[in-house]
Amino acid sequence: MNQTARLLTFSDGVFAIAATLLILDVQLPENDQSLAHQLVHLWPSYGAYAISFVVIGIMWINHHAIFEQINRVNRTFLVINIFFLLVIAFIPFPTRVLAEQLHGDARTAAFFYGLTMVLMAATYNALWFYAAHDNRLIAPYADPRVVSGISRSFRPGIPIYAVATLSALLSAWLAVALFAAIALFYVLESSLVGRTV
Amino acid sequence: MNQTARLLTFSDGVFAIAATLLILDVQLPENDQSLAHQLVHLWPSYGAYAISFVVIGIMWINHHAIFEQINRVNRTFLVINIFFLLVIAFIPFPTRVLAEQLHGDARTAAFFYGLTMVLMAATYNALWFYAAHDNRLIAPYADPRVVSGISRSFRPGIPIYAVATLSALLSAWLAVALFAAIALFYVLESSLVGRTV
Amino acid sequence: MNQTARLLTFSDGVFAIAATLLILDVQLPENDQSLAHQLVHLWPSYGAYAISFVVIGIMWINHHAIFEQINRVNRTFLVINIFFLLVIAFIPFPTRVLAEQLHGDARTAAFFYGLTMVLMAATYNALWFYAAHDNRLIAPYADPRVVSGISRSFRPGIPIYAVATLSALLSAWLAVALFAAIALFYVLESSLVGRTV
Amino acid sequence: MNQTARLLTFSDGVFAIAATLLILDVQLPENDQSLAHQLVHLWPSYGAYAISFVVIGIMWINHHAIFEQINRVNRTFLVINIFFLLVIAFIPFPTRVLAEQLHGDARTAAFFYGLTMVLMAATYNALWFYAAHDNRLIAPYADPRVVSGISRSFRPGIPIYAVATLSALLSAWLAVALFAAIALFYVLESSLVGRTV
Repeated sequence: MNQTARLLTFSDGVFAIAATLLILDVQLPENDQSLAHQLVHLWPSYGAYAISFVVIGIMWINHHAIFEQINRVNRTFLVINIFFLLVIAFIPFPTRVLAEQLHGDARTAAFFYGLTMVLMAATYNALWFYAAHDNRLIAPYADPRVVSGISRSFRPGIPIYAVATLSALLSAWLAVALFAAIALFYVLESSLVGRTV
Repeated sequence: MNQTARLLTFSDGVFAIAATLLILDVQLPENDQSLAHQLVHLWPSYGAYAISFVVIGIMWINHHAIFEQINRVNRTFLVINIFFLLVIAFIPFPTRVLAEQLHGDARTAAFFYGLTMVLMAATYNALWFYAAHDNRLIAPYADPRVVSGISRSFRPGIPIYAVATLSALLSAWLAVALFAAIALFYVLESSLVGRTV
Repeated sequence: MNQTARLLTFSDGVFAIAATLLILDVQLPENDQSLAHQLVHLWPSYGAYAISFVVIGIMWINHHAIFEQINRVNRTFLVINIFFLLVIAFIPFPTRVLAEQLHGDARTAAFFYGLTMVLMAATYNALWFYAAHDNRLIAPYADPRVVSGISRSFRPGIPIYAVATLSALLSAWLAVALFAAIALFYVLESSLVGRTV
Repeated sequence: MNQTARLLTFSDGVFAIAATLLILDVQLPENDQSLAHQLVHLWPSYGAYAISFVVIGIMWINHHAIFEQINRVNRTFLVINIFFLLVIAFIPFPTRVLAEQLHGDARTAAFFYGLTMVLMAATYNALWFYAAHDNRLIAPYADPRVVSGISRSFRPGIPIYAVATLSALLSAWLAVALFAAIALFYVLESSLVGRTV
């Protein structure tokens, strides 16, 4: 296995585990209501589970799109990737907080969730722009239009998530709707990133 | 690694993790009975664990059978696969509910478990029929009889699980027996899917 | 990826996850003693963790030794493998029970742990002897002496674990010492299985 | 797959899972303070999570650096690797204890965390020096300067962690600062290990 393949193996593992661990935080409350009632009223947990699962899934798809354009790695890139994965693996915690607090202090929970998304977008941008700067790690066979297309599609990540995060101060529901919309947008978009996959 | 190999790596990870996480939900109750008594009376947990483990295992075998016939993926297929995996990774939750409630509100729990199975069959059918429609992603070397054999063996999935789910309204035990029988049937069947493996 | 490589990927995943999940069951008790005291008195948890981790690690090494001799799989073999992995993934539960009860009903806990080991040995033997019977799945290039050496080294598994399990009825400590000794023996032995690795 | 590739697959799995499981131990306390207050006061948990995640990530990078120089494995090496992974998979436990006790008995918790790090460095040294002794498992194409460079960079591991561990007896904060500094040092260093990656 070469270095790049190894990096992908470890990263795929973290993506798959972080996504699958999310379900451990979907839990029945301990109260006296009927099971059917409890299962229905868990919908914030299902929603938070689905949004985070799709976010991690998309990050994984895009992570591979990046590696389509790269044919070597160096130690700095490995380290940035570890910090990026550190944020990915952190996602189950704000997801749990959001699910638990959607009938409680929902605004704080949504703001905290959003902060994690901003951090994720930031480390993700760092990963890509470190590799793309001066074609540092870009493969000679990469199409320059695809590379600049990925750069173009990554730049809005931080501001979009920052706006959604700030909107939590107005309304948690607005913020969650925006988080879901962003996830849905990335799923549906037919961006250059998408087309390279 | 090509796209298909990556997709399999991530999917294999989710299958393996979801199956292995099931054991975290097998837990001793907190009561004053003897340990031997508790361990014996946990049999609904063991049963739910075994059924769900085998279901996930079979889905994994069949997932690979699909990929025998496919030699390319596109973004839509990746997204359908994420939603399919989202349902697979969800299975530990209804399994836990079923195990906990088999001496409680068993009918609701079995119905909820069945709904998850129907959803799993639906996303799984979506995955296959998206790929097979007009041979969209089917490899040129695929045997048309195998492809149509897989289609034939997948179609009954939704109605079979729907019937088992509805039977939970009559009797939870009937429904669980049907879930076990369906799993056993898929294990024992010598279907076209099976024979391609 | 061919069928055998896929099977190994999924199996490796289950081995690695089951081994790593063991640590979730090492937990501080909730009492008023000093932290140092609690950490020292957790030694049954550390011991159970270590024994089970090594057992799973050895099963993984031997699982690969089997696949050295095999060059094809069929559906029946896949299904036996799923049941074998079902037992492997179950190990964290009896490990947790053993760790919690070593100062409680230790004999029942050790007996239950032993039963799981017997079941593991049984499904593992089924896996190997299904493949080896009449050289059903054995590669043409396999050395017959290695194949019969593996068979010879596998046969004692069930009776050895059965004796250790029954010894739990006399003394839990004897049984645990035997479980540790068996694990250590497999680690140290220079068996044919070992030598093929 | 050859033996070395298999070993890497299993090891990568344990690294990725151990790192990702760390988040399960970041949990909101059950008290009456505001959510924002709780989330801010969880910073010891975030810190412990980050340090352990980075430590495991670095061990994974270095583990691969070792395998750059090795082209064969034997049973003894496999067994040492299992004990090394046993320690890696143990890390979530002292991490959780440290996070929980940073406002409690922090010195004991930091000492316990340090002991685990010493054990990790010890098994890691055993792994490398077993392979490197008399070039036992070193590939013929390995550069002797790289091999001796790795040996040189590994030797300080045990004493450095031992000093940090002992410093916990003076002050938990000093010890944690040292743990963070060691992790940061390994991240930033441009050692021979690093340069081979």
